[in-house]
Amino acid sequence: MININGSTVRIGQFGVGPIGLESIRLVAKKPWAQVVGAVDVDPEKIGRSLGELTGLEELKDRFVYGSFEELWEETEPQAILHTAGSSAETSISQIAPMARHGLAIASSCEQLLYPELRAPESSHRLDVLCKRHGARVVGAGVNPGFVMDVLPVCLSGVTTNVRGVFVERVVNASTRRGPLQRKIGSGMDPEEFRQLFAAGAAGHAGFRESAALIAHCLGWPIDEMVETCEPVIAKSVIVTEHFDVPPGKTCGLHQRVVVKSDGEQRIELDLKMYLDAEDPHDAVRVDGDPPIEAIVKGGVAGDQATVAAIVNSVPRLLRSSPGLLLMTDLPVPSWA
Amino acid sequence: MININGSTVRIGQFGVGPIGLESIRLVAKKPWAQVVGAVDVDPEKIGRSLGELTGLEELKDRFVYGSFEELWEETEPQAILHTAGSSAETSISQIAPMARHGLAIASSCEQLLYPELRAPESSHRLDVLCKRHGARVVGAGVNPGFVMDVLPVCLSGVTTNVRGVFVERVVNASTRRGPLQRKIGSGMDPEEFRQLFAAGAAGHAGFRESAALIAHCLGWPIDEMVETCEPVIAKSVIVTEHFDVPPGKTCGLHQRVVVKSDGEQRIELDLKMYLDAEDPHDAVRVDGDPPIEAIVKGGVAGDQATVAAIVNSVPRLLRSSPGLLLMTDLPVPSWA
Repeated sequence: MININGSTVRIGQFGVGPIGLESIRLVAKKPWAQVVGAVDVDPEKIGRSLGELTGLEELKDRFVYGSFEELWEETEPQAILHTAGSSAETSISQIAPMARHGLAIASSCEQLLYPELRAPESSHRLDVLCKRHGARVVGAGVNPGFVMDVLPVCLSGVTTNVRGVFVERVVNASTRRGPLQRKIGSGMDPEEFRQLFAAGAAGHAGFRESAALIAHCLGWPIDEMVETCEPVIAKSVIVTEHFDVPPGKTCGLHQRVVVKSDGEQRIELDLKMYLDAEDPHDAVRVDGDPPIEAIVKGGVAGDQATVAAIVNSVPRLLRSSPGLLLMTDLPVPSWA
Repeated sequence: MININGSTVRIGQFGVGPIGLESIRLVAKKPWAQVVGAVDVDPEKIGRSLGELTGLEELKDRFVYGSFEELWEETEPQAILHTAGSSAETSISQIAPMARHGLAIASSCEQLLYPELRAPESSHRLDVLCKRHGARVVGAGVNPGFVMDVLPVCLSGVTTNVRGVFVERVVNASTRRGPLQRKIGSGMDPEEFRQLFAAGAAGHAGFRESAALIAHCLGWPIDEMVETCEPVIAKSVIVTEHFDVPPGKTCGLHQRVVVKSDGEQRIELDLKMYLDAEDPHDAVRVDGDPPIEAIVKGGVAGDQATVAAIVNSVPRLLRSSPGLLLMTDLPVPSWA
């Protein structure tokens, strides 16, 4: 609920998939923001009104453009919500033109949570570009972006001699959208899922980034980072809105990432995301003096939370110094 | 574990009570910091070596001075840990001379968590002074400073349409120091405790500040803030290291603060702190879409956590813009 210099922030949406549309709906409700338009590559969407796409009458005169340049020419946004994929390299190439106009960009791109990990050179160039043009970029979200990285870092602030960080997250994927159920391998032959994960085409994106962000904040050099992912196998038939999974087939994943630093296992992130998972929750343990153990009942999950994390970051991003930033460079998260 | 410009931060300690001594011990272990000296008004402490007072041999050539001016003349600190009382007015008068030298000051003063509440004019003057001289001041701690304010604000970052924030904290005071056991009324006649609380001489300090910080971050104007405190009465004899409490006498407190905004009850903080309390914990509920509910098992408590919160804030404070700052103006807390 922050008033930015007394006027509303002009926000553009880059990517008009389900998350992009939810972002637009949320921004439309914010007194500090206004939606000025959107960008998508889908010819079916270009030229259509956001009123029509979102069902919000007040957006009938806001449109989808085929490129950022057109959006810029027509609407001059001050901030962009970027929800267009998981790859840092691709996102950076999409974001660079926005940075040249000095905009603030909050992105759901999982790899942008800690861009140096997979795109060190492009990240450096984008950071320089941001600083030159007064632009700000941050990767935001719930996971990655909060429960398995920012929250444990935050809890480490009230302890000392931190020796390890452990996070366990269990998500009941039955309550999530079709694309997420597909990403976790629903209905697949277990061997096929393993091969897809090995090829980088399935699994939870941004897991290594969560671990790298924690290591960065706690000053732990990464000697070794090992990520594994095993399919969870359906024991009986599972029926969701999107998939029917017979017994013996994949109904989700169990993904882990472990980081060693200075010869010790310091970070362990454990994610179970499968259909009909019982007791969904997020559990964080910071092994320090004193030890801290926190549980988020039910876990933080769902598109509403994801979109909230991205939109809520905008006012803090606008108050930060220019650059390609980390969530932990921004002030404490808060509802905005 | 942050390296500040490649050299260690020269830290002075203002106030050499039990918390001050713990601060010094913690700073002495930090690779990014060094203890340069301390200040206290107690003639018994002035001139003594911090090696002697802390038991740390490496501090034998660091001393307690009778005033900040002497500490400054002799040691030129860059940052000060201020642990010398709960009153914003008193703390601000002690901190102003430090701000004139452009230092970074992290204070345990409870009222400095949200100084505008009780000392609006002095706060404004200190903020101007900080900006003029490049100084930074923040009030830090566990409670106030984290579990009942910063943590719920942080959790609000992954939700939206926030309608209310509720925090319940239960502390087993039997595990805490004598002064804290005294502050919560241990052994007192219940009526005497009520009178002392009404006179501002007993109870948990900084509770209103926690509520005001939440309201500030969530953009809720405060229509009404009501704070109450009732003694918890011992049912049978309670024996601790510091107090023997007979049945019928006070063994702790149940303090509440409730904030109404725009006609709705928005914030409710509930603190039970008493001897032999069972199931100590911190529970945070953010009533938004989605709702978020988190439990810190056992609760975050104890001098180690308090001192950690203060010392850990220093690197973030040094990276922030000058001013009298709030914890929520600083980047996400983290172990440093």
